[in-house]
Amino acid sequence: LSPQGNKLWGGRFVGDTDPIMEKFNASVAYDQRMWDADIRGSKAYVRALEKARLVSTDEMDQILHGMDQISEEWSKGAFVIKPGDEDIHTANERRLKELVGAPAGKLHTGRSRNDQVVTDMRLWLRDAISTLAGNALQLISTMVERAACATSFIPGLVFPHHHAVALSRDVERLQEIKKRVNVLALGSGAIAGTPLNIDREFLRTELAFDAISLNSMDATGQRDFVAEFLFWASLCLTHLSKMAEDLMLYSTKEFSFITLSDAYSTGSSLMPQKKNADSLELIRSKAGRVFGRCAGFMMTLKGLPSTYNKDLQEDKEAMFDCYDTINAVLQVSTGVMSTLQINQSVMEAALSPDMLATDLAYYLVRKGMPFREAHGVSGKAVFMAESKNIPLNQLTLEDLTTLSPLFGGDVASVWDYRSSVEQYSAPGGTAKNSVTAQVEHLRVWLKKQAQ
Amino acid sequence: LSPQGNKLWGGRFVGDTDPIMEKFNASVAYDQRMWDADIRGSKAYVRALEKARLVSTDEMDQILHGMDQISEEWSKGAFVIKPGDEDIHTANERRLKELVGAPAGKLHTGRSRNDQVVTDMRLWLRDAISTLAGNALQLISTMVERAACATSFIPGLVFPHHHAVALSRDVERLQEIKKRVNVLALGSGAIAGTPLNIDREFLRTELAFDAISLNSMDATGQRDFVAEFLFWASLCLTHLSKMAEDLMLYSTKEFSFITLSDAYSTGSSLMPQKKNADSLELIRSKAGRVFGRCAGFMMTLKGLPSTYNKDLQEDKEAMFDCYDTINAVLQVSTGVMSTLQINQSVMEAALSPDMLATDLAYYLVRKGMPFREAHGVSGKAVFMAESKNIPLNQLTLEDLTTLSPLFGGDVASVWDYRSSVEQYSAPGGTAKNSVTAQVEHLRVWLKKQAQ
Amino acid sequence: LSPQGNKLWGGRFVGDTDPIMEKFNASVAYDQRMWDADIRGSKAYVRALEKARLVSTDEMDQILHGMDQISEEWSKGAFVIKPGDEDIHTANERRLKELVGAPAGKLHTGRSRNDQVVTDMRLWLRDAISTLAGNALQLISTMVERAACATSFIPGLVFPHHHAVALSRDVERLQEIKKRVNVLALGSGAIAGTPLNIDREFLRTELAFDAISLNSMDATGQRDFVAEFLFWASLCLTHLSKMAEDLMLYSTKEFSFITLSDAYSTGSSLMPQKKNADSLELIRSKAGRVFGRCAGFMMTLKGLPSTYNKDLQEDKEAMFDCYDTINAVLQVSTGVMSTLQINQSVMEAALSPDMLATDLAYYLVRKGMPFREAHGVSGKAVFMAESKNIPLNQLTLEDLTTLSPLFGGDVASVWDYRSSVEQYSAPGGTAKNSVTAQVEHLRVWLKKQAQ
Amino acid sequence: LSPQGNKLWGGRFVGDTDPIMEKFNASVAYDQRMWDADIRGSKAYVRALEKARLVSTDEMDQILHGMDQISEEWSKGAFVIKPGDEDIHTANERRLKELVGAPAGKLHTGRSRNDQVVTDMRLWLRDAISTLAGNALQLISTMVERAACATSFIPGLVFPHHHAVALSRDVERLQEIKKRVNVLALGSGAIAGTPLNIDREFLRTELAFDAISLNSMDATGQRDFVAEFLFWASLCLTHLSKMAEDLMLYSTKEFSFITLSDAYSTGSSLMPQKKNADSLELIRSKAGRVFGRCAGFMMTLKGLPSTYNKDLQEDKEAMFDCYDTINAVLQVSTGVMSTLQINQSVMEAALSPDMLATDLAYYLVRKGMPFREAHGVSGKAVFMAESKNIPLNQLTLEDLTTLSPLFGGDVASVWDYRSSVEQYSAPGGTAKNSVTAQVEHLRVWLKKQAQ
Repeated sequence: LSPQGNKLWGGRFVGDTDPIMEKFNASVAYDQRMWDADIRGSKAYVRALEKARLVSTDEMDQILHGMDQISEEWSKGAFVIKPGDEDIHTANERRLKELVGAPAGKLHTGRSRNDQVVTDMRLWLRDAISTLAGNALQLISTMVERAACATSFIPGLVFPHHHAVALSRDVERLQEIKKRVNVLALGSGAIAGTPLNIDREFLRTELAFDAISLNSMDATGQRDFVAEFLFWASLCLTHLSKMAEDLMLYSTKEFSFITLSDAYSTGSSLMPQKKNADSLELIRSKAGRVFGRCAGFMMTLKGLPSTYNKDLQEDKEAMFDCYDTINAVLQVSTGVMSTLQINQSVMEAALSPDMLATDLAYYLVRKGMPFREAHGVSGKAVFMAESKNIPLNQLTLEDLTTLSPLFGGDVASVWDYRSSVEQYSAPGGTAKNSVTAQVEHLRVWLKKQAQ
Repeated sequence: LSPQGNKLWGGRFVGDTDPIMEKFNASVAYDQRMWDADIRGSKAYVRALEKARLVSTDEMDQILHGMDQISEEWSKGAFVIKPGDEDIHTANERRLKELVGAPAGKLHTGRSRNDQVVTDMRLWLRDAISTLAGNALQLISTMVERAACATSFIPGLVFPHHHAVALSRDVERLQEIKKRVNVLALGSGAIAGTPLNIDREFLRTELAFDAISLNSMDATGQRDFVAEFLFWASLCLTHLSKMAEDLMLYSTKEFSFITLSDAYSTGSSLMPQKKNADSLELIRSKAGRVFGRCAGFMMTLKGLPSTYNKDLQEDKEAMFDCYDTINAVLQVSTGVMSTLQINQSVMEAALSPDMLATDLAYYLVRKGMPFREAHGVSGKAVFMAESKNIPLNQLTLEDLTTLSPLFGGDVASVWDYRSSVEQYSAPGGTAKNSVTAQVEHLRVWLKKQAQ
Repeated sequence: LSPQGNKLWGGRFVGDTDPIMEKFNASVAYDQRMWDADIRGSKAYVRALEKARLVSTDEMDQILHGMDQISEEWSKGAFVIKPGDEDIHTANERRLKELVGAPAGKLHTGRSRNDQVVTDMRLWLRDAISTLAGNALQLISTMVERAACATSFIPGLVFPHHHAVALSRDVERLQEIKKRVNVLALGSGAIAGTPLNIDREFLRTELAFDAISLNSMDATGQRDFVAEFLFWASLCLTHLSKMAEDLMLYSTKEFSFITLSDAYSTGSSLMPQKKNADSLELIRSKAGRVFGRCAGFMMTLKGLPSTYNKDLQEDKEAMFDCYDTINAVLQVSTGVMSTLQINQSVMEAALSPDMLATDLAYYLVRKGMPFREAHGVSGKAVFMAESKNIPLNQLTLEDLTTLSPLFGGDVASVWDYRSSVEQYSAPGGTAKNSVTAQVEHLRVWLKKQAQ
Repeated sequence: LSPQGNKLWGGRFVGDTDPIMEKFNASVAYDQRMWDADIRGSKAYVRALEKARLVSTDEMDQILHGMDQISEEWSKGAFVIKPGDEDIHTANERRLKELVGAPAGKLHTGRSRNDQVVTDMRLWLRDAISTLAGNALQLISTMVERAACATSFIPGLVFPHHHAVALSRDVERLQEIKKRVNVLALGSGAIAGTPLNIDREFLRTELAFDAISLNSMDATGQRDFVAEFLFWASLCLTHLSKMAEDLMLYSTKEFSFITLSDAYSTGSSLMPQKKNADSLELIRSKAGRVFGRCAGFMMTLKGLPSTYNKDLQEDKEAMFDCYDTINAVLQVSTGVMSTLQINQSVMEAALSPDMLATDLAYYLVRKGMPFREAHGVSGKAVFMAESKNIPLNQLTLEDLTTLSPLFGGDVASVWDYRSSVEQYSAPGGTAKNSVTAQVEHLRVWLKKQAQ
């Protein structure tokens, strides 16, 4: 008897692998996570085998029943991984054999691990994407409602709805990826397709895929959908790192625009007074982690020849890690956003007259001066105020007229923050009415997504 | 007079920059490439200013005419960059002032470099994407037609249509990105929108954008469309690196499945007989280069706070370099593909009986043996042949029946390559009819894309 | 009582964290791996506290004894992680309190998690580097000895000692990194150093560090040594990916230069005859994985402000994963190298006369023709042979003299592979004596490293 | 005549390349930058040829003289690149032929572009490293002297010498890399070494290399020294991005700890009052750019087989771009550092009593309370002060004794910032004397480096 008779690839080898190689090769430690997808795939496949008369109805029923038992074992945490269970497929099939005996040997007919593993991944990721979309929508909704509640007259610059706009693009991109994930690869065999009478359209319907892969070599050897997902997570996390960066700055003692909830802060083991914005630093850090997975997988892909190469086994840990990471980040971000305290009065107090220098230039533009010239005059006014060590709005009319004869008494109207902001009312701007319109737009979009 | 009076940001600074800082800060060396987009944007903007009565019709006409002159200068290579021309916008506006005088000073009214630069980029990239899509379709078409012409009975495994399938996904992704590129950002100002009566819907129509950006802070500070494009190019190049890897292997003397055209080979400066597959090695190498740009830009983005930061200036060189690179790769790949010689007879001669071991297993499956068992028996047959140092199909029926009593005289029918391949006729498979169907599918898809 | 009284950062917070945030924040799941380093660090630290009279000798003894008990629990797998054990330090200190009571509360005096965590990492990585260096030397030695045993006359081009040369640089780089790892950070506090009378030189000696960190802000906030290690692993793995790429090519049926041991191959679940070079594909894939970790961590570092930020918590998983990966790869590579079969006769049979075209040019050079001209003549000879469809060495003297009158009867001596190779005897060349010298050089180097 | 007779690889090809392929293949547009290194390499090589009697003394003199003329042409900007000049070697040799005729055809004898290009790169990078080291030392020196001049009692936390510490590690790493750059590869031929009597030790001395490459296959196919350099630049730039991040925060209006010189700021084209810290944002952004080059090159390397592959041509643009970038960043950083204004009084005013909470805990520790308990009590004091809305040092002794009976009248001494800082006097700490010691240490180190 071959010493490797217990491996599925069976009776050929006479040597033996070394234990480090065994461990290096095995994926069950992490791919067991796809047990449910693997079972769903096998149940659909055995139905297709029965339809092609490669198993009898009775054999099919035994296998289906066995698979349900295995599913229950996994659900209850009772499934026991055994030595030799290289991956989730091997483990499930080994267990099936223990449960139903001989018919189990027919389940793999015309199927390869190459098309099986990619089918498992597609089923798993399809579900994962739904979860992520839900959590992203929750975060967007939280941002929008916080912006909607703001009563300050400077809502546009500080409130979080502009992050929501970026995240809404992320959700749209995720839906596009889902479309390419949701494709049936089963029936592609190891590389060349299936020589048996397997009805791929039947498999597609059984597993609720949107489409059937066009070419067997491509279907078994491509991992575009994984790479796309990893990059999606990376880009989404740069948006959340941007949000975190804003909030960290605003929560410094010097800014004090916002106060982070204790629930999302931690203390220092040494400094009793210190309250660290750990949640925000962790959010920021994850953009690196996730993009690292993307970079690593892209490098692994680069230069591979066609069809399945074992290198592709790197796909799963990357996919799982990115999913877990961004899933946590989205939820923690929602927690941070919904509990942070916005110190409106501090923000309003931070306004200073020099911020109105553009308004001063526009004042001159309205009097007929070309903008470039007006910009220069206003710059000189700023410099004059700095030289005199007074705020810009404390320059006298006399001071200003040394810079341009167009200045008149009505320049006083420039120094009103509220009316300054209210000018920015074009679509996308920061005036109250423009922000309200954006909030409404996002609410409608959210409702549409929820359907 | 301020020593920096010649800079657009004008009259405020009293210090001076150092020459290294000047060069570090300037982008005109590379962003001049967007001269046409910049002029188109300014022409639309001056029309909007006239509509808002911020310039007179006469001023508008002068500016439009001046812009047309500038455009002609660029077209003819006659435009002269001058010291102080930091970027393409500054250069064009400086030239406009020389040509039309005072009215030029009104062009920037209510506009910022922040919304201007991103508008230029979006206009430029929209055109670039059209070019790339065209070149990708040309390559796909070449692959499909080479596959269609193949007369070998082993078309599925060697011919290039499976690469075309991967590339067709790339084209679809590129169209999705184009949708997000083609959005009007102009009218977002520096950060807060525009306080003037600029009609953004008018601008959208003038510049043929599909949509208007929703939020000014997001519009000026986000570069998702650039990041998406860089990643798109990276993923597309992993497909072409895969193609290159296949072709390099097939063109080794040991394989000799294909012969690369001299036009896409180079010689060695030392070894007279050496013909290097340089085109393929260059294609392969570019996946790294382009992904490096993507990785670099993602790292630059990571951790930036909201709104425009000068860090974003890294966007343009990355975008241009990736465009130039993939544009060249697509064309060189088309050249390689259309001129390579496929050595069908060599490929057919490389077939060996052990490749039919799966067929041997299926023979037993058809006789009722479970696949797992059949796989093991076939594996033992392979081992037996190796031990006897004979090809698999030279095992006698006597030999085979020591492994299983199910073997009979009809096993001889297994050893036919042609009929073996013809079994793989399910959708996506490698049988002749299946390949023909794939070719047809791609031809239809190509026609649809061309519209 | 505060609801978070069980957290070390104690009595300040009145809110509570959310469970996802707790999990997001905790590192004990992976940093428990440094339990031994953490205990060693704490034992040294309590000795320094005693020296500074911040604990009594009796308290020190209790703590040391407690730490030894904890060490034993970890060794035996008996240590129980409890809720609230955020990281390995918290866990060990919590357990110490259970074991020795009040004195445990003094262990953290003047110490911060910031200097403690980096001390743990430096101790851990120092040991890890020793292990890796040992495994790398083992692999180098295997390569050298396989090269030394080769009896072919074409040793230089095929045998693995050139990979050993690359790896020897890796070992040298690793030693340089070790020097920078082996620096005492303890005594840097959270950021500002220690205000207590802690003798850092004493700590250095106790923990066998080579040097003391120069600045507390730098010491607690920098992770150069981690980044260096991640990049080291990445570069080393590109060398092993190169080795794997060579061996994969040489082990194709078409080349058959080598045969991989069954111990490092796996079978196909579908194709009984298939023997996959999985070990080589896995080795190649890991370059991507590890560089991804490096890229991710670099992105996490980029743009962080000074001193410890929670983002740095990404350092540990990256460090562990890279260590585990390259440690396995080195060992599997040694296994592959030591068990592969080299098919010398196949390699020799693959030689073909056109490979001697450079020798043909040198023949002319020796007769006085400038090399550039000789290269051209030899190229024409190759073309002539191709046109006549004969091997280069079958060209008659008559044929050759049509290309140059310098050819004479002695040209026949060119067509000897063995003497051709033997010319390449300059240092670093591929002649037998040159290879032998390289082997000797590496053996001496290995001996030196082993000391 | 062959249509490609003008190419150095001469007389073999009958096809022709396409213009896009030509451009794709050529490197002269960027590698002309190494003209001086290429000439130096060739001058040494012709001396070695003469020594081996492969050229006559007279021919050598002609070639040396021709090379000097070419060098002069490059220096004066008079060298003209011609069509067919693929790379700098081809261009120089083509020009040599024009100048000296026939002997030029002997220069390449026994040499390959493979060993020539890597020799050029090593010579170029060796010089580049010297320049970078000089600029880095200048920056370190600036940081150290600014720290030395500080008169504030809080020097340790704000002044820039901790960045100097990080940079000093960068300089040390750069020296290690230089050692591996400075190795002679010439004499390795295309792959197999040289069959001629070229004295490699003579070449080493001529070109002032430290060592001779050990193996010809490794020497022509490895680019470790480039990868190391790219990573070195990346890590160094994370240090400078950290410095930039600190300075940006400190220069916000809310912090106002520092004021950036106008020379390193730029204005806004829209907002007259705006002074952007563009120099700092550019510095920060370059970490991404440079690491992108590193990531790209590592991906290009990954999976390449042994010996020279055309993919390696990616090495040069990456090397040049990283050099130019970091060279500019080092100089701009020196400018920023030497001209920024430090607002000591603002910094001192930003101190607040809660920062002394750790001191409050140490007060209790000195009275015998275990640190963990003292940390908790101090935390409660912070909370009490926050609840009462008063600064921590306004808690009465009565208030404090409700938290611990150990508090006494001497607690008042805790509230002195100056004496608090002065406690941190252990090596590496932030007390004045400790900072002075660090400054001294760095000055000594700088002197040593300058030698």
